[in-house]
This record gives sequence, C-alpha cells and structure tokens, in this order.
Amino acid sequence: MNSDFDAMVKRPPTWLDGSGADSEIVMSSRVRVARNVAGHRFSHYCDGEELSDILRTVEEAARGTAVFARNQCIAMGRISTLDRQFLAERHLVSREFLFNSAHRAVMLNALEDTCLMINEEDHLRMQGFAAGFDLERAFQRAAGLGEQLAELDMAFSERFGYLTACPTNLGTGLRVSVLIHLPGLVHSKEINKLLESLRKLNHVIRGLYGEGSEVMGNLFQLSNSATLGTPEDVIVKNLREMVTKVIGFERKARDMLFRKARRLLEDKVWRAYGLLRYARSVSTKEALSLVSAVRLGVGAGLIGDVSVRSLNQLLVYIQPAHLQKLSSANMDAGERDVARAEYIRRTLAGSSV
Amino acid sequence: MNSDFDAMVKRPPTWLDGSGADSEIVMSSRVRVARNVAGHRFSHYCDGEELSDILRTVEEAARGTAVFARNQCIAMGRISTLDRQFLAERHLVSREFLFNSAHRAVMLNALEDTCLMINEEDHLRMQGFAAGFDLERAFQRAAGLGEQLAELDMAFSERFGYLTACPTNLGTGLRVSVLIHLPGLVHSKEINKLLESLRKLNHVIRGLYGEGSEVMGNLFQLSNSATLGTPEDVIVKNLREMVTKVIGFERKARDMLFRKARRLLEDKVWRAYGLLRYARSVSTKEALSLVSAVRLGVGAGLIGDVSVRSLNQLLVYIQPAHLQKLSSANMDAGERDVARAEYIRRTLAGSSV
Repeated sequence: MNSDFDAMVKRPPTWLDGSGADSEIVMSSRVRVARNVAGHRFSHYCDGEELSDILRTVEEAARGTAVFARNQCIAMGRISTLDRQFLAERHLVSREFLFNSAHRAVMLNALEDTCLMINEEDHLRMQGFAAGFDLERAFQRAAGLGEQLAELDMAFSERFGYLTACPTNLGTGLRVSVLIHLPGLVHSKEINKLLESLRKLNHVIRGLYGEGSEVMGNLFQLSNSATLGTPEDVIVKNLREMVTKVIGFERKARDMLFRKARRLLEDKVWRAYGLLRYARSVSTKEALSLVSAVRLGVGAGLIGDVSVRSLNQLLVYIQPAHLQKLSSANMDAGERDVARAEYIRRTLAGSSV
Repeated sequence: MNSDFDAMVKRPPTWLDGSGADSEIVMSSRVRVARNVAGHRFSHYCDGEELSDILRTVEEAARGTAVFARNQCIAMGRISTLDRQFLAERHLVSREFLFNSAHRAVMLNALEDTCLMINEEDHLRMQGFAAGFDLERAFQRAAGLGEQLAELDMAFSERFGYLTACPTNLGTGLRVSVLIHLPGLVHSKEINKLLESLRKLNHVIRGLYGEGSEVMGNLFQLSNSATLGTPEDVIVKNLREMVTKVIGFERKARDMLFRKARRLLEDKVWRAYGLLRYARSVSTKEALSLVSAVRLGVGAGLIGDVSVRSLNQLLVYIQPAHLQKLSSANMDAGERDVARAEYIRRTLAGSSV
C-alpha cells in the first residue's frame, strides 16, 4: 500500500495541472454522483456485517470496470490516520470518512480524475475531476463510472428517482461543483451580495474543504443544491451558466480593482510573492492568503514566470499530511510551518521571476 | 553647481562603503570640531553683514587648505530646498542649516570624508567621517582640517579653552560619535537599560538624524557629551572604550537571540529580504526597519550575498531628496514610496542571493 502512496506524493493529481478553460479563476471542476445498492439499508443504519456485505459487492463490481481494473481498493480502516488525512487533502475522500473508517474504502485511478468512495453517507459516491472550468469532462468521468457499474442494482424509485441517505441528494444524486478563486469579489466586498444571490438561486457556495470549512485563500466551492426533479444535463447546464456569470463578475471586479488601485494591488501581489520566496516559516492560513495574492497577480499578467499549475499544486501540497508524507516524518505544527515554507520556496524557485 | 550634485548622487560617500572595523555593527564614525573666529559675535547674534564677513574670512582660509583646494564652497542660500535636504541626508549639514540658509555655506572634499559648515551654531563646524568603527581616522580628518586652518584666529580662553555658542561644546568643541546598529539590544529589550547607563556616564545616544529624531531601523548615534576639562585624546579614547563595550553587549544579545529563537529570527530576516526584493511601494520607516532586519541577517551570516556596503547605501539613498535627485523629478510621498521600492530592488538584485 505504501508504495502507492509514495507514488501519489510524487505525482500531483492531473486536475491540478492548471489546464482547462478559465484556469486563472476556476481551479478545477468536480462531479459527484450518489448511489445506493438496492436491498440494503443506508450506511448509517447498517451494522458492520451489512457494511461489509455492501463493500464486498461494490468492490467486486468496481474491480470489473475499465477505470479501476488495475488499481487497489484502499480500505480506510487499514491505513494510518496520516494516510487517511492525505486522501482527504487530495479531495479523494470526505472529512467524515476520516473518523468512521471501518468497512469503508476508496478506489481511484492513477490519474486521480475518477474515484469511488464506498460506504460514505451513501453506499457509492462516484467522483469525476477535471482541470479548470470543464464540468462536462468531470461529468463524463463520474457518469462513465456509473455506467460501468450498471451490473449493480441501485436503489431507485419511479416517483423520486435515485434514493439517497440525505433527501437533498434525492433524484439524480448529482452534485456538480467548481473550485473557484474570487479575490476580486472579496477585495471589492461584493462577495456577500453574490453569496446571497446564489443561495436564493439554489446554489451552494462554501470554503475549500466542504461544509462548514472556513473560506481561506479566497477559494470557494460553488455547486448546485437541488437534485430532485431536474434532469442531469440541466443541472450541469445550470451550473455552467451560473459559473460563467460568476467568472464574468470576478473579471469585472479585478479590472475595476486594478483600475482604481493598481499601485496598491501590484505592491500586495509582489509582497506576497517575496514572502513566499523567502519566508522560513509559514502557517497554512497565511500561505493560502499569499498564494491567493500571487494567483491574482499571475491572472493579471503581473507575474509572468509562475505557472498556475505550481500555484494549484501548492494549495494541496502545503497541507499537514502532504508535508509529512513529503518528508517521511511526523512533524508538529511548528515543524510543519518550516517544512511548508521550504516546500513553497522550492516550488517557486523552480519557476523563478 | 548642479553638475557637482549630479556627481555626488552617482557616487556614495566613502564612509558608507562598509569597510572598517566591526562594520556589521558600527556603520560609521564621525568627529565634529566646533570653532569660532575671534573678534566676532556668535552666529545667532550676528546680523547679515557680520555673518557675511565671517563667511568670507573662513571661506578664504578654507580655499587655502589642501583638502578643499579644488572644491567649491556651496552657498546654502543659493541652492534649492531639495539640494539642501540632499546635503542633510548625507550628514554633511545639520537639519537646522536647512531653514536658516542666508550667509551659510558648506565645503567638502570629493571623498566626502571631510567637510566644513560655516555659520551654523558656531562659525566653523569641521567634520571628519570614516567607515566602520574608526574614531582615530575620523578625528585625524577633522583635526587635520583644523590644523590647515591655523591661520584663522579662533576664539579661545585660557580658562575654558575654545569658546562655543553652546556651553556643552566649550573646551575642545569636540563631538566624537558612531552610527551604530543595535537590533540585538532592541529585540532583547535591553536597550533602555543601556541608554540609561550611557546617560549616567555622560554619553549621548539618539536616533539616526540627531537630536530629537526618532529611532528608526534600530540605528543609534552614540557620542560623548562633556567636552570641557578633558583632553581631546581622552575624549576619543573614552568613546572608543564605551563603543567597544556596547559592541560586546550587542554581539552577546545577538548570540542569545539566535540561540533562543533562531527559527523566528531567520524567518524575520528572510521575510524582510523578500519584501525588499519584491515590494512595489515602501515607506522610509518600513524600509529602515526591513533593512535593519536584513543587516542583522548579514551580520549573522544567514544572508551571504548582500554586502554591508549596499545596505549602508540604502540607508542614505532611500531618503526623499536622494530619491528625487536620482530620478531628476519632484515626487509626492506616494511616488517616492514607489521610487524607493524600485531603488531597493535594483540595489539588492545587484547582489542577489
């Protein structure tokens, strides 16, 4: 198992590579499909035996798919806390998965653009990822996995559609989302107005690590909320239109900021770059905020030689489990701050200005 | 006249060159000798005619000296406010000289290690400068000028010695000082205890630009106060001993800080370097504080490729008049902040890490 993790540490997920449309604003696109195996209770009502049955059934089916054919099934209960945290930092498993790990597993392909959580809130949570603003590709990956798992009999009602543990996922079980960088709207203080409108329009917006997570680095997850009574392609289309609008607002806010306060912003952007290039100790929160400023500068063409790809990778690799896996050592918070600063310096020096 | 100033802008004073003993702590040494021409009232009692007489007499004598033979006498009333400020920033004239400029003048040699203010508080204020901790050389320069001006009949009393406008200068008219960088004692909060002791021992310690000036960048002027009843060589020797002690305290404080909080200090030093390397707008106060941190890092061997010389030059050249002379433009405070940041970036990039 460890060798797999070592390979993952060395190879960032493809959806971080900064390619794809509008990648200076939209970091990545993600689609999640929730399904449950017919004839079983939902995960949180199951005892260990039933969870174990479900896991066996789903894993067997998944091993038969093209996408997972050559990949292992990672049993969450058999890996270390650090490895579980590592998977969560890569967005492969949810935070809830970390604590309730018995009879839970995750499967993923080598590109890390497709993955399957087994026995999370629902029996199956299929995820597709894509770089930049590319909901279609992310959808194809998640839906494609669903098609390959057609042999499984999924819980379905003629009246409601696919049945899910939480009613908000009822119908299509579909959640379509983007990870989007909105420093323009945050700095211009327009963000709260936008959040309000999005909520009224049945969209959900939250911080980098899902529900209840703090907004750091001006990074937001924007997703649909209703999944009942709307066909899948319409859900994707609606979110695409909404994200297109938000990208437009963000561009406008950035233009305005640079017109009104160019000197101040240039200074802010370059100071952030200078600190990342030379600091010897940086907390996650500060790092995210500095990376956000540099990302804004790269987007505005102020900083030429830093790639969006390296900034994306920083966002994942500066986290506690990644830093510890990188250095193969357990580190306390102070040591991580030092390792984080070192990793950032190394990454940015690779694409120096 | 302007061509002289242009040459000065391009060529930093030799006493900034970072040579000399203990130059990572003592930036420069300075000796000032106050004299008055016999048979005239002190400057502040003189009308324009008498000041003019004194100026003529002193200037004529000074033109006869080897050190000033080929240099012009800069009439303070005939140069712009900006040029006057420029001279003050180079420590060649006092701040008081800026406002009361009629019948006042300054002479200096090309190396800027010897200068003479005429009609400041006293008729003659002879100054000698040296890089690093080198009171003897600074003394030789000031005293040497005095010897070359021996033809002038100086106001002298058998009882008091040389007569000066302010009784604190009575006797030898000698002020011996160093510009000393004490970040260790400031950070360890030992500085106030030291200042107290120095005052009790009849030494004066103050900020970068003389009496009443704010302490910025952890730079202090440390000088003798009594000049009456003590022979010149004893005054120099006393200050040398005192400065040697202060250097010892500072080294000890730095060692202690690096032992106790190495990680924190390294981070502080490198962050300061990063900001100086990349900021697009910096105030004088912030710049002095950042340069102070980098200087500490260079002294501790943390930062290898930045010379003490370039840091010394920054301290003088980031000031308002220097920035405006450098770019041949009048600039408001905001524009100066931008020009300052640019000058600092250029200077440090020249000795990049």
